[in-house]
Amino acid sequence: MKTDLLLSSFASLLFGQLCLAQTNETAAEDFKPSSLNQPNKQYPQVNSERRVRARVVAPQATNVAFQFLGGSTYPLTKGEDGAWVGVTQPQDEGFHYYQLVIDGAQVPDPGTLYFYGGSRWGSAVEVPAKDQDFYALKDVPHGQLRQVFFHSKSTTTNLRCFVYTPPDYEKEISKRYPVLYLQHGGGEDETGWGSQGFTPFIMDNLIAAGKARPFIIVMANSYVPGASFGFAATNQPPPTDSRYSQTIGGPGGRNYNPAAFARVLIEDLVPHIDVNFRTLADQSNRAMAGLSMGGMQTRAIAPANLDKFSHIGVFSGGSLAVTNIADMTTFKEKVKLVFVSYGSRENGAAGKANVEALNQAGIKSVFYESPNTAHEWLTWRRSLREFAPLLFRD
Amino acid sequence: MKTDLLLSSFASLLFGQLCLAQTNETAAEDFKPSSLNQPNKQYPQVNSERRVRARVVAPQATNVAFQFLGGSTYPLTKGEDGAWVGVTQPQDEGFHYYQLVIDGAQVPDPGTLYFYGGSRWGSAVEVPAKDQDFYALKDVPHGQLRQVFFHSKSTTTNLRCFVYTPPDYEKEISKRYPVLYLQHGGGEDETGWGSQGFTPFIMDNLIAAGKARPFIIVMANSYVPGASFGFAATNQPPPTDSRYSQTIGGPGGRNYNPAAFARVLIEDLVPHIDVNFRTLADQSNRAMAGLSMGGMQTRAIAPANLDKFSHIGVFSGGSLAVTNIADMTTFKEKVKLVFVSYGSRENGAAGKANVEALNQAGIKSVFYESPNTAHEWLTWRRSLREFAPLLFRD
Repeated sequence: MKTDLLLSSFASLLFGQLCLAQTNETAAEDFKPSSLNQPNKQYPQVNSERRVRARVVAPQATNVAFQFLGGSTYPLTKGEDGAWVGVTQPQDEGFHYYQLVIDGAQVPDPGTLYFYGGSRWGSAVEVPAKDQDFYALKDVPHGQLRQVFFHSKSTTTNLRCFVYTPPDYEKEISKRYPVLYLQHGGGEDETGWGSQGFTPFIMDNLIAAGKARPFIIVMANSYVPGASFGFAATNQPPPTDSRYSQTIGGPGGRNYNPAAFARVLIEDLVPHIDVNFRTLADQSNRAMAGLSMGGMQTRAIAPANLDKFSHIGVFSGGSLAVTNIADMTTFKEKVKLVFVSYGSRENGAAGKANVEALNQAGIKSVFYESPNTAHEWLTWRRSLREFAPLLFRD
Repeated sequence: MKTDLLLSSFASLLFGQLCLAQTNETAAEDFKPSSLNQPNKQYPQVNSERRVRARVVAPQATNVAFQFLGGSTYPLTKGEDGAWVGVTQPQDEGFHYYQLVIDGAQVPDPGTLYFYGGSRWGSAVEVPAKDQDFYALKDVPHGQLRQVFFHSKSTTTNLRCFVYTPPDYEKEISKRYPVLYLQHGGGEDETGWGSQGFTPFIMDNLIAAGKARPFIIVMANSYVPGASFGFAATNQPPPTDSRYSQTIGGPGGRNYNPAAFARVLIEDLVPHIDVNFRTLADQSNRAMAGLSMGGMQTRAIAPANLDKFSHIGVFSGGSLAVTNIADMTTFKEKVKLVFVSYGSRENGAAGKANVEALNQAGIKSVFYESPNTAHEWLTWRRSLREFAPLLFRD
């Protein structure tokens, strides 16, 4: 035991920011496999104290750690069976990206499913939330999550997006639906909302309960091929190897450029969706929302395109101040809803104040705070749950 | 150079079955990132000699190897920058599962996208095939790949499948389509054909070229929850934690049981598809095919359900002998096509002979051999390319 602590202290010198791994003796012994594990994989596990227990077999390694993305690092301890084990401090409920560090190699945990975040496909663990029922797969009618390729004139490539269609879409053959364009965060991609965001289950459950109107959700990639970082497009050409930007898991060679994404969205994607899906193709039936970077994009793109969008959602991505709205008359006429949300562990004070000011200016606005969560997916799953029922009600 | 060889020889004692890593000096220096890499990841790479060059940063490791699933292991060599590098012998064209072994830990390569095979989500590398154009993403009308959940009465769970709908499905609102049920191989799942199988691109390209009739493809998971290995169902209960069998990446707690899968397919899935998609819901418009284990399932299920299926495809999964057909009169009346394929590096002699015998018995049968491939996905992509144009022509 003392040796373990000494080893941990030594390891902390090597790894920098470190938390001491909790020994198994003091953690509640009700660990269960994370719901995001691969089939039949027992680790990582989570207990009732919201601690994560990791385990990886690495018999010849000298140093193994568990590292939350942008968070704490926990050294693991080697057992006689060649497996390294460790327990973290209690975590917030919800979804957490992490990686293993094995003798300096940053690798995914072979026990988990993989998710795109932090600009890489990697591991994640789910700490069960008390309200997890709202994003559970239930015996209700299910919508479909569809992989869709669309041609982008502005980038001369074929790009991928995902489209959620509600449960009755295939049965109500002549019915048309409103559309929400829903963007991921920085370092994530078009798979985020459909996978770790649980968008299909959240919507299926809301619709089955009569809480949300059935509508289509389109999830695209905010990173546009050939666009450089920053707010001005450059003359950097698109990738010359077209296959390199067209692999199944997500195009490569992309950078964040809101102007470039706005062109793809307005000129390529919206028209493609309106031609290939049974949409209500007018401004009053089109919303845009996003989380973090996607929220910033929404704040930039939707107000500049009020002929296209009527409902605006910004999740952990800032807010709209009255003073930033250039033409208040048009904004009041066109915008049916401004929704702003934050996790309670983020600083949402300015967002809340801005929402109040918008309401006083006569613009219907709603602020939501997710209890006991930070800049993480449980905040955004809940934000979608709160936002969706407010859409397309006018 | 001599030191490298000595180290490699020493490493071979540790790793068992080993191939000597080719040094960079003797490999053609035209390496390019594999098309299955994550965005902006440069490794693994493949050169014109079909060699794979791997690289992973693991500064404190003492032993790092590149290991093809079920194939050779190549020790990597540490450079002064803390990165381990190595080059494999030339590989067959196509898709190859592999993993990294870092000081004994079997982990995915952080450079690649991940694919389900070998009963785990892990890495793969693509050696460009001379005929890769047939499964490339092109400027043609694209179908959709849809994630669909269906309720399974026989297992009392909600199961996931993927459904490919052809490009005109959303535009020809009253048109109905034939359906192919297409199964993955052992250790794989319902994601295989849509991801590493490139089914959507293969079909989009065949349909655009007028080579295949547009039809729907349904890809389910052959492993049924609560069913044990073997040909007889047991009384093993389904997993009690329903969330554990319902995660995005694939249900857990499953085992292979052809009888259990046949029940799911015939009693749950086919009815669900016929209600929720615009199918031509009769025997003459329904096909079943599969690769390897999926081919064995097809040989077991389709001939036993000739009121349901008219076209049969078996890829690298054995073949149908005339002597195994119990009721030849019914078989001849009901079966419009038997298709059998193998890679040229597999032993397809019996399959070819059986196809000839079936033809002589008056049953339309086709044999296809994929040049220079083994029991791998390029064999099966090509098999689909050859099989699809033959379907639903009567």
